[in-house]
Parts: sequence; C-alpha cells; structure tokens
Amino acid sequence: MSTPKGYRFAAIEANLKYAGRRDLALLVSDLPAAAAGVFTTNKFQAAPVVMASSMLQNRPFARAVLINAGSANACTGEQGLANCRRTLELVGDAAGVAPEDILPASTGVIGMQFDMAKWEAAAAPLAADLGSSTAEDFARTIMTTDSFHKLVTRTVEIDGAPVSLLAVAKGAGMICPNMATMLAMFITDAAIDPAMWQSMFREGVDASFNRVTVDGDTSTNDTVFGLANGASGVTVTEATRSVMQEAVTAVMREIAYMLVQDGEGATKVIHINVTGAHSNADAELAARTVGHSPLVKTAMYGRDANWGRIVAALGRSGAAFDADDVVVTMCGVELFRNGQPTDADFDTLLEPYLKERDIVLDIELGHGKGSYTLLASDLTHGYIDINADYRS
Amino acid sequence: MSTPKGYRFAAIEANLKYAGRRDLALLVSDLPAAAAGVFTTNKFQAAPVVMASSMLQNRPFARAVLINAGSANACTGEQGLANCRRTLELVGDAAGVAPEDILPASTGVIGMQFDMAKWEAAAAPLAADLGSSTAEDFARTIMTTDSFHKLVTRTVEIDGAPVSLLAVAKGAGMICPNMATMLAMFITDAAIDPAMWQSMFREGVDASFNRVTVDGDTSTNDTVFGLANGASGVTVTEATRSVMQEAVTAVMREIAYMLVQDGEGATKVIHINVTGAHSNADAELAARTVGHSPLVKTAMYGRDANWGRIVAALGRSGAAFDADDVVVTMCGVELFRNGQPTDADFDTLLEPYLKERDIVLDIELGHGKGSYTLLASDLTHGYIDINADYRS
Repeated sequence: MSTPKGYRFAAIEANLKYAGRRDLALLVSDLPAAAAGVFTTNKFQAAPVVMASSMLQNRPFARAVLINAGSANACTGEQGLANCRRTLELVGDAAGVAPEDILPASTGVIGMQFDMAKWEAAAAPLAADLGSSTAEDFARTIMTTDSFHKLVTRTVEIDGAPVSLLAVAKGAGMICPNMATMLAMFITDAAIDPAMWQSMFREGVDASFNRVTVDGDTSTNDTVFGLANGASGVTVTEATRSVMQEAVTAVMREIAYMLVQDGEGATKVIHINVTGAHSNADAELAARTVGHSPLVKTAMYGRDANWGRIVAALGRSGAAFDADDVVVTMCGVELFRNGQPTDADFDTLLEPYLKERDIVLDIELGHGKGSYTLLASDLTHGYIDINADYRS
Repeated sequence: MSTPKGYRFAAIEANLKYAGRRDLALLVSDLPAAAAGVFTTNKFQAAPVVMASSMLQNRPFARAVLINAGSANACTGEQGLANCRRTLELVGDAAGVAPEDILPASTGVIGMQFDMAKWEAAAAPLAADLGSSTAEDFARTIMTTDSFHKLVTRTVEIDGAPVSLLAVAKGAGMICPNMATMLAMFITDAAIDPAMWQSMFREGVDASFNRVTVDGDTSTNDTVFGLANGASGVTVTEATRSVMQEAVTAVMREIAYMLVQDGEGATKVIHINVTGAHSNADAELAARTVGHSPLVKTAMYGRDANWGRIVAALGRSGAAFDADDVVVTMCGVELFRNGQPTDADFDTLLEPYLKERDIVLDIELGHGKGSYTLLASDLTHGYIDINADYRS
C-alpha cells in the first residue's frame, strides 16, 4: 500500500459513545494542502458541516481532518456549533495545528450534544498518536454500522513521476443521492491548484458517490473531504489533469462501490444502467425510482427476476417514454420487450447469476440519448435488524 | 350489515392461480348504475385498466364489476387486451349482462397471460353463484397478500330516507400516492347523476386512497370503481350532496385506513400531519418523504422515537422551510424545536404510546398555511418475508 507522502494519522479510543473501540481519528498534513469539500444537501446540516463548509468557502486550504464516530453533532443548535469549534481548538492546540486549518466531520446519533469532558481528555492522546496509527486504523475508527472498513489506494504517474492517492470512507445506511450518511476523505501528495483540485474533486464525486443508493435517505452529516498537499513534489497541470482526474474518479468509484456493497444488511450490488432516455436527468429519475423501489430491492434479495416490479417502478418514475419501447435486460438476459415479457426461460437462465453479488440491470427506454448509471443495494432482513434498533 | 339494494354477488374457485380458495368475483347490479372509476397513473397500465378506463370514458354507466386474483393481466400486450375482452364476453354471456356493461379489474402477478380455458370453465359457475355469495365473500375473494378482508358499510339518511353504502377492497403492498396495487369497489343504492357521482367519487378518493402509503411503489393495476344504481329510490340532489359526500368520504377513509393497517408486514399506522407549509403541495412533499423514509419506518417498527430520522427526511424533502422553525411532535410529546431536541424525557414519555398501533406525528414547518395528512405503515421483517418471496 502506497500512502501519500506528508500525512500522519492518529486514531484513539476517546470513549465518546462506544466503549472498547477507537472512535476519534485525526489526519494531519505536514504541508498546507489544497482542500475541497462536498457536503450534504439536507436542510438540517450538522454543526461540523456548517463549520467545514464555511471554512472552505473562506479559504481553500487545510492541514488536518478530524472525525469522530458515535455522535453526529447534528440538530444541536448553537451549543453544537460552539462544541464543534471547541473540539478544533482542543485538538489544534494539542497537535500544533491552527484550529481554522482543521476540517471537522462527525457521524453517529443525531441530536446528542458532545460530552466535552471526554474531548478535553482525548485531545492530548490523539495528538500523541499522530504517526503511530495507519490509514487503515483511521478507516476503522470512523466506522459506525459498517461491517468492513473502506480504504483504497492508487499510484499514478504524472510526467513520469509517481503520485499517490488514498481514500477512506464510512457509510452503510442513508446512502443516497447527494451523499447521505457517508463520510469520506480523499488525500493525495500531488500538488494541485486549489481551483483545479476542487473542480476535479467535484467531478469525481458526481461520477461516484452521487451515483449510489442504499435506502434513499440522506443525512445531516454527509461529507467528502479532499486534500492535495504536494509532498510528492509533482504538480498536476492542465496537460496532466486528465490522467489525475481518471485516477481520482476511479478511486472514488471503488469507494462508492464498497459503500453499496456494505449497505446496511445488503447482499447485492445492483448496477442500474438506464439508456435511451429523453435526457440524462430523465435517465437518473428512472434509475433512482428503480433503485429506491422496496419491491425491486426485496426481489433482488429474494433472487427473483421479477421484472414486473422493475417496469412498475419505471412506469411511476415520471421519466418520459412509450411503454412499448422499453427493453429490460438482467445479467444479459432480455426479460421485457414490446410491452410484455420475452419468451426466454429467464428463471432458469438467471438462477446462477442471481446468486452473485453483482446484478446488472440494463434498462433501455427507447426515447432519446440520455443515460445514467446508479449502484443500489437490496433490501433485506439485515437492514430491518440494524435500523429497527439503531439507537439502543 | 346493510347491503345496498339491487346488487348480487358471486365468488367462486376458478383455480386461476391459487388452488383451494375463491379467486374470481362478480358483482351485478339489477339496474344500470352511474359508474365512476379512478385508475393507476403508472405508465404501464394493465389490460383491465386500459379496458375499464376507456369504457367509462365512453359511457358513465355499468351493470357489473368482475375481479380476479392471481394474475394481474399487466404487461401482457395485445394478447392481454384480447383476453380481457374475452373474459367479459364469457362472463357477460353467462350472466346475461352486456360485456360493455362489465368493468374488469385484476390483481396478482404481472406479465402472465390468462389461462383462458380456466376462464371458459369458470363463467357458468360464476353466473350461477350470483346472489348466493355475500359482499364478504367478494371481499375475501379479491385478496392477495392481504391478511384480512376489507369491507365497510354505512347507512345515511337523504331527505329522511335511508340509502346504503358498501365498499370492499384489497391491498397490502404497493400502496402509494395515486393508488398502488389496490382494488376497491364502492357501491350505493342512491340515485346520483353520473357527473355528480364521478365528482363526489373523485373527491372521496383524493381524501382517502390517495393519502395512504405502504412502500411508495404504485402498481399497474390500481383501480377504484364506484356504482350508484338508484335501487333505494332515493335521489341525491345538489341540496343533499354534502351529506352523501361526507358518507362516501368517510367510508373510503375507513377502507384506506385498513389498507395501511394491513400494509405488508405492517405493525403500525403512522398518521403524518404536516402543517405550516408554504403550500399544500409542499406539505404533501414533506409528508410523503417522511412516510416513505425506510429509516423512519424502521424506527417506528422498533418503537424508537428517533426524531433525528424524521428531521433528516424533512431536510431532504425539498419542502420550503427554515430549519429553526420546525416543530416535531409525536403522540403529543414535543420532540424537536428551535433546531434541536427538546428537554422532554421523550423515550420514557413515549414508551407506552409507541407500543400502540396508531402513531400520530405532527410536523409544523412554520412557513405558511399549507397542510397535508398521510397515513403510512412501518417497515418490518414481515415486509421482507412477503416480498423477497412473492412469486413462488
């Protein structure tokens, strides 16, 4: 694993909510890094989202990212904002980083105020741990209902010299358009102009995190941070931008796939490819309606090629098409054409495919050139188990 | 139970799909009845929906309703339409009713063609049964995944004389805005001008069936029929319209409540009252986003006053409001105000209420005068059980 240069990780047990596991993580860059952020579009924005987005609007640089699990610091009012600010001061003082250079993110229960005594006790051990913990420790620390940690690295050559990229993320439930409860941090040791970095970052997010869904719910805390600190000594220019963009998007897509794979209780990753739509927006509408349909999602869980539920979802999606022009294909087997099921013995044909984790669903609307791809999880007993008893 | 005059019921085992249970039901009115229908808005409309809606567009009268369970005759193309037409001929011939006076509806698996031999064998026994079966038999016969039959009757005085109303319905999954897989039949022995009847009927449907949701999915077959045959000898006029409207809407609301109560796997009926919205449409948007949120629905199943998920759903709903103005109250206990949770010890306060079937959720957006009420079910293991293995 090639970790980008010039970053140190810390991860400790701060006992903020969970006992017996690490729940507080810090990343520090030795150099000031060009910084980008994408945040939830939910009207209820958690305190760290309010803080971090305003920080990045003022100044597109940062040196650190601070993430806690257990409490989301969302719907916590002025007190929540003051607490968030205070955690940055505490950790900044201990780690020798200016508070305004630390980007905060939180995940966990909504509406709980931080226990500040625990934060005060945690700051020094957290700073002391810098450099001892690994990116994997960081990734494990920010987990909530995740069943595995998410970490992806990649090396790419820019003008013949290597630069490294690394992403960590947590997610599982509430994964949806515009990001949902997902925290991700993406770092590289390339040097990139902040405006270019932000644009590349946004493009990557749109092509990855914004194209996955678990349950259609979006959270108050969704955040993706990106830091580019230049410690490799390699600068990305307009000439090499496309190479870097490709790597950024590829890493983000790998992470996004993991988020769906680890969707709460999920057993499937459904790849919904809509083509032939009137517009890309219409294709997205169709893909999301199918990807959010509880009946489609339970059918996939039940390994049932129930195309009827797919077309029923398409039919209520609001996307423009003529019912007779729609073609639905699952794992390469055409199920539906000319307004009715095909003659294929698809239950037999699809049986082996439906046991696999990845299910490819191709939907041609026959109405234009718009297209969209969405990754969706299935809906299972595991999802109910997790979410009917989350707080306790 | 006071059944409206001038109607006969039939219900038999036609063995269309299920063995050992009745699956084919017929209602015949002795007199031509003013007829109304409301149908699914899904782009994929089942053959009986196409047929019945075109029949009613041509002529707002009917004498019979024919409903089968087991096969939806949806996504069955020209053959499906021809089969539907043929079933009306077969049953019409046997029962002595013109085929164009019989309104068809079907429920069950999508994409299967009717086994016409079974229909040919069934027509005579079905006609022979007319008058032997009851409305309750009819209600039981049209069930699919329903756990109980839905039947409501009421008597109302019009100008001092009694008229009767009766409604039967099936539903359970796919209950959503614009009706979902729900078949309902509403009959009265009042005499009502067809235009007035259709308008009253539509008003009742909008205030009842269109305000319930189970899973947000809508089907290819949703149909509500209404017949008013005048057999009571009592005519509803403009002067008595409001009395009749009140009764119609009340009966429809009772049926709609039953549909949510019997939502697939449901243990709760969540009454979501949104007030203070910019418009009624905004209130509906907020109510539906909350009522469709898997996280809210699983929390209700888990008897968890997880207001955080409610505000997260509001925040992504697209409804206009200021986060600080929102007040969320559950079963009379205020949970959220001024952008944060209240001081109430709501877990303790709500514990007894959350064990009840009915959960009242009042959401004040503080942004205008728009309001909307939606009944929603919870999301449970039962839902997954039913839908992960429906076809087999």
